[in-house]
Amino acid sequence: MAAVDLGSNSFHLVIARDIDGDLQLLHREKQRVQLAEGLNDELILSEEAMERGLSVLKQFADTLMDIPADSVRIIATYTLRRAKNTATFLRRARDILPFPIEVISGQEEARYIYQGVAHFEHFDGQRLVMDIGGGSTEFALGNEVGPLQLSSRNMGCVSYAGKFFRSGKISQRRFQQAIIQAEQELESIAGNFKRMGWQQAVGTSGSVKIIRDLLLLQSPEQPAITLAALYQLQQRLVSIGHTDQLDWPGLTDDRRQLLCPAVAILIAAFQMLDIDSMHYVDAALREGVLNEMFQRLHDQDIRQLTMQSLQKRYQIDDDHCRRVQNTIQSIFEQVKDQWQLDTDDGRILNWASQVFEIGLHINSSGIQKHSAYILQHANLPGFNQEQQLLLAAMVRFHRRKLKLDELPRFYLYPQHKVVPLLVILRLAVLLNQKRRDHWLPKLKVKASPQQLQLKLPDDWLEKHPVLMADLRHEQRLLAKVNFELSCPQLAQEETDV
Amino acid sequence: MAAVDLGSNSFHLVIARDIDGDLQLLHREKQRVQLAEGLNDELILSEEAMERGLSVLKQFADTLMDIPADSVRIIATYTLRRAKNTATFLRRARDILPFPIEVISGQEEARYIYQGVAHFEHFDGQRLVMDIGGGSTEFALGNEVGPLQLSSRNMGCVSYAGKFFRSGKISQRRFQQAIIQAEQELESIAGNFKRMGWQQAVGTSGSVKIIRDLLLLQSPEQPAITLAALYQLQQRLVSIGHTDQLDWPGLTDDRRQLLCPAVAILIAAFQMLDIDSMHYVDAALREGVLNEMFQRLHDQDIRQLTMQSLQKRYQIDDDHCRRVQNTIQSIFEQVKDQWQLDTDDGRILNWASQVFEIGLHINSSGIQKHSAYILQHANLPGFNQEQQLLLAAMVRFHRRKLKLDELPRFYLYPQHKVVPLLVILRLAVLLNQKRRDHWLPKLKVKASPQQLQLKLPDDWLEKHPVLMADLRHEQRLLAKVNFELSCPQLAQEETDV
Repeated sequence: MAAVDLGSNSFHLVIARDIDGDLQLLHREKQRVQLAEGLNDELILSEEAMERGLSVLKQFADTLMDIPADSVRIIATYTLRRAKNTATFLRRARDILPFPIEVISGQEEARYIYQGVAHFEHFDGQRLVMDIGGGSTEFALGNEVGPLQLSSRNMGCVSYAGKFFRSGKISQRRFQQAIIQAEQELESIAGNFKRMGWQQAVGTSGSVKIIRDLLLLQSPEQPAITLAALYQLQQRLVSIGHTDQLDWPGLTDDRRQLLCPAVAILIAAFQMLDIDSMHYVDAALREGVLNEMFQRLHDQDIRQLTMQSLQKRYQIDDDHCRRVQNTIQSIFEQVKDQWQLDTDDGRILNWASQVFEIGLHINSSGIQKHSAYILQHANLPGFNQEQQLLLAAMVRFHRRKLKLDELPRFYLYPQHKVVPLLVILRLAVLLNQKRRDHWLPKLKVKASPQQLQLKLPDDWLEKHPVLMADLRHEQRLLAKVNFELSCPQLAQEETDV
Repeated sequence: MAAVDLGSNSFHLVIARDIDGDLQLLHREKQRVQLAEGLNDELILSEEAMERGLSVLKQFADTLMDIPADSVRIIATYTLRRAKNTATFLRRARDILPFPIEVISGQEEARYIYQGVAHFEHFDGQRLVMDIGGGSTEFALGNEVGPLQLSSRNMGCVSYAGKFFRSGKISQRRFQQAIIQAEQELESIAGNFKRMGWQQAVGTSGSVKIIRDLLLLQSPEQPAITLAALYQLQQRLVSIGHTDQLDWPGLTDDRRQLLCPAVAILIAAFQMLDIDSMHYVDAALREGVLNEMFQRLHDQDIRQLTMQSLQKRYQIDDDHCRRVQNTIQSIFEQVKDQWQLDTDDGRILNWASQVFEIGLHINSSGIQKHSAYILQHANLPGFNQEQQLLLAAMVRFHRRKLKLDELPRFYLYPQHKVVPLLVILRLAVLLNQKRRDHWLPKLKVKASPQQLQLKLPDDWLEKHPVLMADLRHEQRLLAKVNFELSCPQLAQEETDV
């Protein structure tokens, strides 16, 4: 299995294997890319930065060549999450690398980091994990079961280097400015994190490691990072006065630029969150990703838990979901070969059936819009941004007009599959409008491209004129997207009108 | 007190007075306008329909002349809720009538009808109320405390007359089509209503009254409407065959056209909701509105309850709301004269302070957008559509960039007041970022047009550099909307930079 992390500072690749149900790391690669450096104020990623990224992907492609597709996950974080021209990068990457790149949210990033740490080092109690990245810094607070609070802040050592230490000059004033801005970023989350509390604070990422190493050089007996030690380091840095003058064993050229911003961000976090001491853990996002792949291979998909927790939190009528799910299942089995639908497609339909009524929590009128809004903006552990968007788009059009031009452009998901999936979902919802168990007779459906024929027992549909009218209405709506829904009984009546 | 109801079929006016804490009806007026008839498929209200409406408003203006402004409420429902050119109508109405016209949501409409019935006739137990309007039909289910389930469906006797009985011909087939379409409208709500159940079903509105009267002519011993009786009426109507031939005592010309659609809608409701029998109650929306005005005058504002129930439903941190509310209160008192803010403005600020964090329920990142979405789409009892929109706009911009061009155009609310209110809210939220009681010292503020000067104890702000940076940031954001936030300590530092 391989996990690749397209970070804002470096790209990382880890390869591991499953040894008797345990994860064994085999290989690591790291390439400095400094993607965040190429992101301007208008959030456009520069051509140079893209090329640096793509050339590293080319190298990684060699390493990944022999690994089966379902055992590779490539995760992109801050810079590709923020950049407005990410689609361009992803398109070009597709020619180099035969694996999908998944852009994830900041909260997902924080969650993976937490999982990476948890897998690396068990701890009974509440733990705070902090990861200073190139463009963002992630915070996760949780216990042995999992994370409870996740946050990603728009501050990173690459972006802060450009903003506060561009000239290389190190001064009290520059530090102060960087620290205050980092504190502003933390203001809105500090209260919640402190209220929940923790017994252990852990730092990950190369930036924290180098700071830990420098502090160890000073006081080898003190392995943890403390605020006092950070203040001392800050003073030393100021007294040295310029980035070029920094010269410590282990401080590589590329790290030199990032030291001051990392110290400033760390000081801000210590101050705002009242952290006493923090120790470094050599785990990161990629280990979390790897661990989750491993679990998925063993049939534990966190996305299923996510859906269940949404159902609970939003008090969704799960009896009704089950009915819709059964109908979906029945249709899916009959059409999947013709429409070339696979397990992943079935999964998406299944999730959609669990949460399409989530918007009822806001209002029953316009439910499809509210459902889509919630799903688009909620934190959905396990889902990458595109899967989340797809799920939101599915529930957005689970009833009423199907506006294809309002569907987002998917990069991972073949557009031509979306309509068939929507047809299945819509039909299952429509056929279960009565919200009654054992009401619907056995369905027969026959699929061909852009067509679905529905067969219901001969006299049954005639006894349900409202459903018949609904189906006729659906027929018209689908016809507008060039999809033909047919049903012998409807055809008969149609000629009558 | 007066309540005016601009319905899709007729405009109504009722005048009442407060006799020893009880409501006494003094006067009623009714004018047929058939506004819904002028609404085309593109939802544009025709000039003729507008003129019919405006000319009735002219007549009402005479009656209302001597009533104080805060004792008049004018409520507009279906047609003005749906029409895309409602703003034109409202603008022209403003020249005729010196009172604001409040457009309300369908759920609000159903709620007022329920309240009207509840006030008119007490009932211990659950009651279903149905009101067939010109453009929509409202359903409310509740108990002696209040409504539990509210729904407004897009079907009315004026719109169905145009759709299914335009030529005047009455046939089995036309009836069947109208009934099925009405049943389709009811499909999605039928389950919930039936699950909750009721012991009494009540119909209001002129359409139900005329059907009750016609049935009474047939069977004077049976005062309730039953499905069997409705079927018989349908058969009689079909056998007569044309609207022009309908001739019954009490059936006026304008009612004649609306009888068949009303019978169809009623049959659909009886069938879909399994209603056994229904009796007519001579109460309607306007009585509900009157009753609520009466309560507001006695300091019971349902909007306050609405905010409290949102706080509970969305688990809002009410300690924090209270802190923000206190700060708002303090600023408001010091600026209200200069900025000419009144009790209503204070009320809006107060509501906003209670719910600005409602979006946390969806996600902490982008909270201002989620808060606005929920407030814009939730059912908020007591709020007219514009108040709801204003509240949503306030929370939308309680932090981050203030985009004036994204503010909706308000008809009832003077645009120039929105910015001052937003400044107060934003400042109160910003100053309470620490989420800590007794942290903030006493504030002094001084207002002038488009300016606010903030004074904090001399040394206090210097001790809080993050807040200082926040204020400086806010200063820049407000400057972009031509508002000057000043503070002596900030000015001092500014020259330093």
